[in-house]
Amino acid sequence: MTGTFPPLREELQGIEPYGAPQLTREQAPVQLNVNENPYGPSPEAAADIARSVGEAAVSLNRYPDREHVDLRAGLAAYLNGSGGSGITPEMVWAANGSNEVMLQLLQAFGGPGRVALSFAPTYSMYPEYARDTLTAWVAGHRAEDFSLDLDAARALVLEERPSVVLLPSPNNPTGTALPPEAVTMLCEAAASYDPGGIVVVDEAYGEFRRSGTPSALELLPRHRNLVVTRTMSKAFALAGARVGYLAADPAICDAIRVVRLPYHLSAVTQATALAALRHAPELLGRVDDLRAERDATVAWLREQDLEVADSDANFVLFGRFADRHAVWQGLVDRGVLIRETGPDGWLRVSVGTPDEMTAFRQSLLDTIGETEARA
Amino acid sequence: MTGTFPPLREELQGIEPYGAPQLTREQAPVQLNVNENPYGPSPEAAADIARSVGEAAVSLNRYPDREHVDLRAGLAAYLNGSGGSGITPEMVWAANGSNEVMLQLLQAFGGPGRVALSFAPTYSMYPEYARDTLTAWVAGHRAEDFSLDLDAARALVLEERPSVVLLPSPNNPTGTALPPEAVTMLCEAAASYDPGGIVVVDEAYGEFRRSGTPSALELLPRHRNLVVTRTMSKAFALAGARVGYLAADPAICDAIRVVRLPYHLSAVTQATALAALRHAPELLGRVDDLRAERDATVAWLREQDLEVADSDANFVLFGRFADRHAVWQGLVDRGVLIRETGPDGWLRVSVGTPDEMTAFRQSLLDTIGETEARA
Repeated sequence: MTGTFPPLREELQGIEPYGAPQLTREQAPVQLNVNENPYGPSPEAAADIARSVGEAAVSLNRYPDREHVDLRAGLAAYLNGSGGSGITPEMVWAANGSNEVMLQLLQAFGGPGRVALSFAPTYSMYPEYARDTLTAWVAGHRAEDFSLDLDAARALVLEERPSVVLLPSPNNPTGTALPPEAVTMLCEAAASYDPGGIVVVDEAYGEFRRSGTPSALELLPRHRNLVVTRTMSKAFALAGARVGYLAADPAICDAIRVVRLPYHLSAVTQATALAALRHAPELLGRVDDLRAERDATVAWLREQDLEVADSDANFVLFGRFADRHAVWQGLVDRGVLIRETGPDGWLRVSVGTPDEMTAFRQSLLDTIGETEARA
Repeated sequence: MTGTFPPLREELQGIEPYGAPQLTREQAPVQLNVNENPYGPSPEAAADIARSVGEAAVSLNRYPDREHVDLRAGLAAYLNGSGGSGITPEMVWAANGSNEVMLQLLQAFGGPGRVALSFAPTYSMYPEYARDTLTAWVAGHRAEDFSLDLDAARALVLEERPSVVLLPSPNNPTGTALPPEAVTMLCEAAASYDPGGIVVVDEAYGEFRRSGTPSALELLPRHRNLVVTRTMSKAFALAGARVGYLAADPAICDAIRVVRLPYHLSAVTQATALAALRHAPELLGRVDDLRAERDATVAWLREQDLEVADSDANFVLFGRFADRHAVWQGLVDRGVLIRETGPDGWLRVSVGTPDEMTAFRQSLLDTIGETEARA
C-alpha cells in the first residue's frame, strides 16, 4: 500500500463513530443516558415473541417478505388508535430502527445538490444522515425556550428550499413538542417551491406527549408532503429489536422502495414486531407511569432552582451548569449515568423507574453540593 | 406542491425497486429462483433460536450491543473452521445481510470521485450499491467461459484505480470461482496506487465450492486490503434472518464503524445468529447434499446438449436459448420458477431438493420440446 491504510474517504478520516458513551452496569448501575424504557417486556410478551420467532424460524431458509405487508397492516392499525385516522398499510413503511427510516428518506429525497434542514439544538444523528447521503445540512436555531419562531423558520425554509425538513416532536434533547400550526406552516412552505420538500415530523417519543399535545398524525390528511415517523424502541420498550416506521402518502413509501436494500427487514424482526403489537396495551401501559415520573422529575428539578425545559418526552433537559462535565462525572462517580448533550451547560436525564429517579435525585444533590464546594 | 410529487431525486425517477420477480407457492410450487437453501432449520435449531430470542426478549427495552462482540467471536470461530485461520473477532464485522455489509463498505471506501469495479456478468446488486453511495461504477468483462482474464483484469484495475474491487467467488449468476492467483494479483494491483483500493471477495456461496477450490480466507494474512464477505443466508439456511459478515484487517472494521448506523444489528438478530452458529454442523450438513445435487444437475443439463457453466455455488447457469423468456415462461406454466438473469440466452436455476430438481428436469424437457415445436 502506498498511501494511508485503509483508504477511507478523506472526509471520514478522524471521525469517531456515533454513539453515546457507554459504561457497564458494574460501573454505573443506574443508566439514564439513552432514553430507554426502563420496563422490559413482560414474561408473557417475551414468551409470545419467542413463540412467534420459533414459528418463523422453521422457514428462515426463505427470504422474508420484502414488503412486510402484515407488519405494515399491524402498524397502521396501531397508529389509527394513537392519534391517526384513515391510515392504510400502503401509507406505512418500516425499517431497522428510525435511523434506517431516516437514511432511506434522505437517500430518496436528499443527496448531492439538495438540502436537509432542521433547527438546533436537535437530534445529533440528523447531520450524520445528511453526511451519509451527501446532502447539504442546514441548521436554523430554536428560540431561547427551545420552541420554534414560526416566522423565522418559514423564512429559512423559503430561503434554503430544503428537500427534507426534519422536525422532531418532541425534540431530542430538549423534549419540546411542536404545535400543529408549526407543522402546517412548514408543510405549506415546503410545498411552495419546485420540486418541493417533504416535512418529516419525528415522533420517536410521540407516545410520551402530555395530555392536550396533538400528534402530527392528525395532519396527514391535509399535507401530502408530511411524513410522520415513529419507533417501537421507546413506548413499546423494544429498542433492542430495532423497528422504526413512518406514515405518509403511499407515493412516499413507493419512493423508498427504490432505495431500500432488498429484504432489509428480517422475518425475525417482522415476527418480533407483530408479537409486540399484540401486546400493545400492556407494553404501552407503562407509558403513563413514565409520563407521571417525568412530570415529577421536571417539578423536582425546578424546586432545586434549576432551569428545566418543558418535556413531552421520556427525558428531561436541565441546567445550567458552569461545568456540566463535572456534574456529569459526579453522577457517574455515584453510579448514575446520564447524558452530556444539548447546549453547553445543560444535561439530559432519561426517565427511569422510581428507584432509579430517587438515585438520580440524591446523586445530583450530592454532586451539586460537592461541585459548589469545590468551585 | 408545484412540481412532481413526491420530490424523488431526479436520477431515481422511473427506477423499479430491485428484486427478483416473485410468484406465490400456489402459482409456482417449485421455487428455484433466488438461490435459497431448500432445507429449513431442523425443529431443534428452530427451537434453540426461539429459546435464545425469548431470553433476549426480556431485555429488549435496552439497545443491543453496538459492537456485537459475541456474534463476531462466534463468526470468527466458524471461519477458522471454514477455510480461514487466525481470524480474530476484531477482524469480523456483521450487518443485516451481505448487502448491508457491501453498502457500508462502499459508504466508507467509495463515494463521489471514487470508483467501484467488477467484471460482468456479475451480481446485479453491485451497481445498485454504487448508485446508492454515488460511487462511479466500472464493469470489465469476463472471458467467454466466465473466468477472469488476469492480465486484462489487472490492466483495468491499474487504469481505473478503483477504491473498491468487487470479486464474487463463486460469481453470481455464473457460479464461477476465482483462483487464488487472481485474488493475489488484484490485491497487489489495488495496493500499488495511492490511496489504494480494497478488494472484496464476495463468498456468499463460498461453502458450496467444489473440493479443491480454496477460499480467499486463506489469503487474508498476505493482503491487508483483502476483504472476504460471507452470509448466513445460503449455507446456514438463514436468508430470512438477514445476517451477512466480513473478515478483514481490523482497521477495515474500524472504518466501517464510522458509517454504520448506531445499533444497526438488533439483539434479536444477534441471538438468532448465535443460536444458528451452535447448530452449524447440522445446518451445514445439507451443504454436501446440495453440492452433489448441483453436480448432478450440471451433468444432466450437459447430457441434454445444453451449455452449462461450471458451478461452485448452489445454482447453475445454463443455455443458450434463442428465446430464453419463452423457456422461463414454459417452466412457470409447469409450476417451476427459475430466474431469467445473466447474459442473453442463459437461465439460472437454484439447486433444490431431489424432488424439486426432478420437477425442474421434467418441466425443462417438456418446455424445450414444446418451444422447439412452436418455433
